[in-house]
Amino acid sequence: MTATIIDGKSRAAALDEKVAAAVAGLKSAHGMVPGLAVVLVGDDPASDIYVSNKVKRTEAAGMRSIEHRLPGDTAEDDLIALVEALNADPEVDGILVQMPLPKHIDSDRVVMTIDPAKDVDGLHPMNAGLLVLGRSALVACTPQGCVDLAKQARGGDLTGLDAVVIGRSILVGKPVSLLLQNENCTVTMAHSRTKDLAGLCSRADIVVAAVGRPGYVKADWLKAGATVIDVGINRIPAPERGEGKTRIVGDVDTEAAKQVAGAITPVPGGVGPMTIGFLLVNTVMAACRRRGLPEPTIA
Amino acid sequence: MTATIIDGKSRAAALDEKVAAAVAGLKSAHGMVPGLAVVLVGDDPASDIYVSNKVKRTEAAGMRSIEHRLPGDTAEDDLIALVEALNADPEVDGILVQMPLPKHIDSDRVVMTIDPAKDVDGLHPMNAGLLVLGRSALVACTPQGCVDLAKQARGGDLTGLDAVVIGRSILVGKPVSLLLQNENCTVTMAHSRTKDLAGLCSRADIVVAAVGRPGYVKADWLKAGATVIDVGINRIPAPERGEGKTRIVGDVDTEAAKQVAGAITPVPGGVGPMTIGFLLVNTVMAACRRRGLPEPTIA
Repeated sequence: MTATIIDGKSRAAALDEKVAAAVAGLKSAHGMVPGLAVVLVGDDPASDIYVSNKVKRTEAAGMRSIEHRLPGDTAEDDLIALVEALNADPEVDGILVQMPLPKHIDSDRVVMTIDPAKDVDGLHPMNAGLLVLGRSALVACTPQGCVDLAKQARGGDLTGLDAVVIGRSILVGKPVSLLLQNENCTVTMAHSRTKDLAGLCSRADIVVAAVGRPGYVKADWLKAGATVIDVGINRIPAPERGEGKTRIVGDVDTEAAKQVAGAITPVPGGVGPMTIGFLLVNTVMAACRRRGLPEPTIA
Repeated sequence: MTATIIDGKSRAAALDEKVAAAVAGLKSAHGMVPGLAVVLVGDDPASDIYVSNKVKRTEAAGMRSIEHRLPGDTAEDDLIALVEALNADPEVDGILVQMPLPKHIDSDRVVMTIDPAKDVDGLHPMNAGLLVLGRSALVACTPQGCVDLAKQARGGDLTGLDAVVIGRSILVGKPVSLLLQNENCTVTMAHSRTKDLAGLCSRADIVVAAVGRPGYVKADWLKAGATVIDVGINRIPAPERGEGKTRIVGDVDTEAAKQVAGAITPVPGGVGPMTIGFLLVNTVMAACRRRGLPEPTIA
């Protein structure tokens, strides 16, 4: 028996459709169209592709996309001034500043400038704090995607399941842990100083791997039937594709793990596509909250 | 072999002395005396005793104490106006609004009004968020006390230890989990929906109990030599003390647990006294950060 492959691409497409329906509903009921501003500083090719995808999917969902592309040598104060202008703009519901920023810019200062009510990336400490306090927050998109895929694999209810989250990054590990706890999982937060990771994983119904090391999680660590969410995006040499070629792999030894797990996300095509999906969801939520409108049920 | 009793009272006294030394140092080096404002609404006897203790220990440490006692029927807007005035007062470094507030007042709104830089109770979402993000924050006092006592019992270093935190309250369970993770523990966050709490505890080097149920954690759940931090404060009938008498017990079956644990906090006299201790520490830290002075090492 091999694991079910959790298809993030088709789930993200379904999410996009639900967002589009919600946006259409808001337009007809309230004459309102959510707007997402994306700010890109510099011309990193990967960031460029990513931003273009965001713009495309935002518009495909019927929302307004506002793009700001700034040169790589933009002064920090100029970027701050742009964020402040977007904060003040009533037509802008969500602000996303594409990371990483050039090294001469203090990312923390930029994030702290974003109005928490428009922080659709969920990076502002206020949103992280509201998540801890169990109050209405804009939650980081990739973590939401992880939990959504785990719920897809488990029929929607994660109550009482034992989850191990490997990696305690502020972008993924910590928020995923808090979200899984909100889903009534018993969550263990594991990391590089954890003594018996294999033992921990062998008791877990859900394993989330977010360590950034190719094939780090081994098949023989897993409990039979476990749900495995692989957040890793690691580029490794792929000589079989030709000299100098590379390919993307996750943090799990996927092929072997398929023989043990009950369900597993592939890399690519698992967690990855979910991130923009929840960015669109967050933009709709931010638009409704800011305007005092009831939030539609999307995910 | 019986467990070491972790003496919170004497540790808190030592902490108070260190705070007093730091305050004296700040006064002589910078002519600065930290000020803590405490706001009590109504005349709940328990809150009254607690506030009086805070005032006494603040002054004993050489700091300025500013007391505001308001009648129980104070309007929410008047309390908000007082908090705003304290935010604006340069002589006030810390603001503590004693909880619980009377029912006609929205506590969340009051907490959200406190300047996060003066929020020495660590209740503001911004401080909760900064804790998640691993950045300089004012952290809630009781959670800091729990971790401090665990470190006392373990020779200062908790790296690699397995910790189970029972209870996911926003005031204790969640911040304790995050703090223990910062100490490089592998933390499992357990709660009412956890399937096998006894099994989890049997593998834990540190057990923190914060559930509010007298004697809930049993001795035979514990690993031999475990460090047990009991946050519970439960009042139970004590007919042996006379008719209608009560006594305070924790969340752990302490007498039996002493035969298994390596170290355990008593109730009372364990975590309890630490809370005001860290309130004073937080006030010194807030005073230094606000004024751009280097923070003294206290705890």
